[in-house]
Amino acid sequence: MALQQLENAHSDEQMQECIDNCLEATQVCEWCADACADEGEGMARCIRLCRDVADIASLHARFMARNSGYHQELGELCADLCEECAEECEQHDHDHCQACAEVLPKCAESCREMASA
Amino acid sequence: MALQQLENAHSDEQMQECIDNCLEATQVCEWCADACADEGEGMARCIRLCRDVADIASLHARFMARNSGYHQELGELCADLCEECAEECEQHDHDHCQACAEVLPKCAESCREMASA
Amino acid sequence: MALQQLENAHSDEQMQECIDNCLEATQVCEWCADACADEGEGMARCIRLCRDVADIASLHARFMARNSGYHQELGELCADLCEECAEECEQHDHDHCQACAEVLPKCAESCREMASA
Amino acid sequence: MALQQLENAHSDEQMQECIDNCLEATQVCEWCADACADEGEGMARCIRLCRDVADIASLHARFMARNSGYHQELGELCADLCEECAEECEQHDHDHCQACAEVLPKCAESCREMASA
Repeated sequence: MALQQLENAHSDEQMQECIDNCLEATQVCEWCADACADEGEGMARCIRLCRDVADIASLHARFMARNSGYHQELGELCADLCEECAEECEQHDHDHCQACAEVLPKCAESCREMASA
Repeated sequence: MALQQLENAHSDEQMQECIDNCLEATQVCEWCADACADEGEGMARCIRLCRDVADIASLHARFMARNSGYHQELGELCADLCEECAEECEQHDHDHCQACAEVLPKCAESCREMASA
Repeated sequence: MALQQLENAHSDEQMQECIDNCLEATQVCEWCADACADEGEGMARCIRLCRDVADIASLHARFMARNSGYHQELGELCADLCEECAEECEQHDHDHCQACAEVLPKCAESCREMASA
Repeated sequence: MALQQLENAHSDEQMQECIDNCLEATQVCEWCADACADEGEGMARCIRLCRDVADIASLHARFMARNSGYHQELGELCADLCEECAEECEQHDHDHCQACAEVLPKCAESCREMASA
């Protein structure tokens, strides 16, 4: 009910959906960056990209929640990062990498839409 | 489905519920801190507490998502902050303050439970 | 001495200078956003821009410290924000606003240089 | 000069020194967490602790810069983390680990002092 009010304050559902996607991206990337540290060789690029996505996507969600004048500029960057990270993660069979590969393209798409709205 | 896998990785629903509560607290506090800046006199304490909650609750959610060894210590701090912020917000009639007063006690409760688990 | 090693790892002084500028910008904007909450009417835009600068400049410093592949894209955004915030702050006589107006243009300039390096 | 004003606003040098230590800790831990991803087996714990320190120390610096009512509670947590991370890092010969082992105890000490001030 409180979030319903917040959604109305945004005056559209599109932003709330993008916030939700960014927060889901943050969670899977935190999980993946952490789990990759145990997977041995070859995961450094995955760790790096997941860390960057977690930082940018969580901040993008916060910028949207407070309707910052810079949420669109940050959204472009978030979309770029999610796309590159998804390409990296889909090459690895680990559950956490596959979870990223599934979640991130959807996040990238909604960030791109918000950025051009 | 990807988040379902993440939830399994947590091996319990309690942590996912606490993550969700922290992310909802982050959103309402970002909204409230921003909106209070337009409300005139008497809202400085509300702005300050909402900013602190947004910073701590969002980081607490990330610490849980990556299963950090310090998520419980941060959860104690998050619970303290949510409780004090809820007490402040419930004194103000603005929609955003009332939304905080509704969301934050639930977040505080789940953070306290996680911290003592 | 430890930071000297870090600076060598960056292989140039330019990045360390930009990191230092971003961290100084973060500090003055945290101070200004907080202090403006007590200044009464007319400071909402200053609070908002200072909050955004503090979030983006601190993250930009961290992206540079870990040599993220996205530090330049974030640096462009940081420069844009610092410039707009400096223009807002220089219109107010408060010490904290004048401190921002002095620190932010230097930060914007070094972020712009890093972004095009 | 602007930071000099900020320091006066803090009304003591102790807090500015603690802020500086936290920002130095953030930088070396960002460097170490990133570099450890390339070092192969056995560095997972170092990556995790360095990530946690970077998140908490940078936020602690920001809480002090805005004189948050919760900076001391966060300072306790920051000190705990810096001490555990320093113990881990001093076991590894890499330059970045040794830089952490040198910087973090000083940060822990000043956070502990601030927390009990």
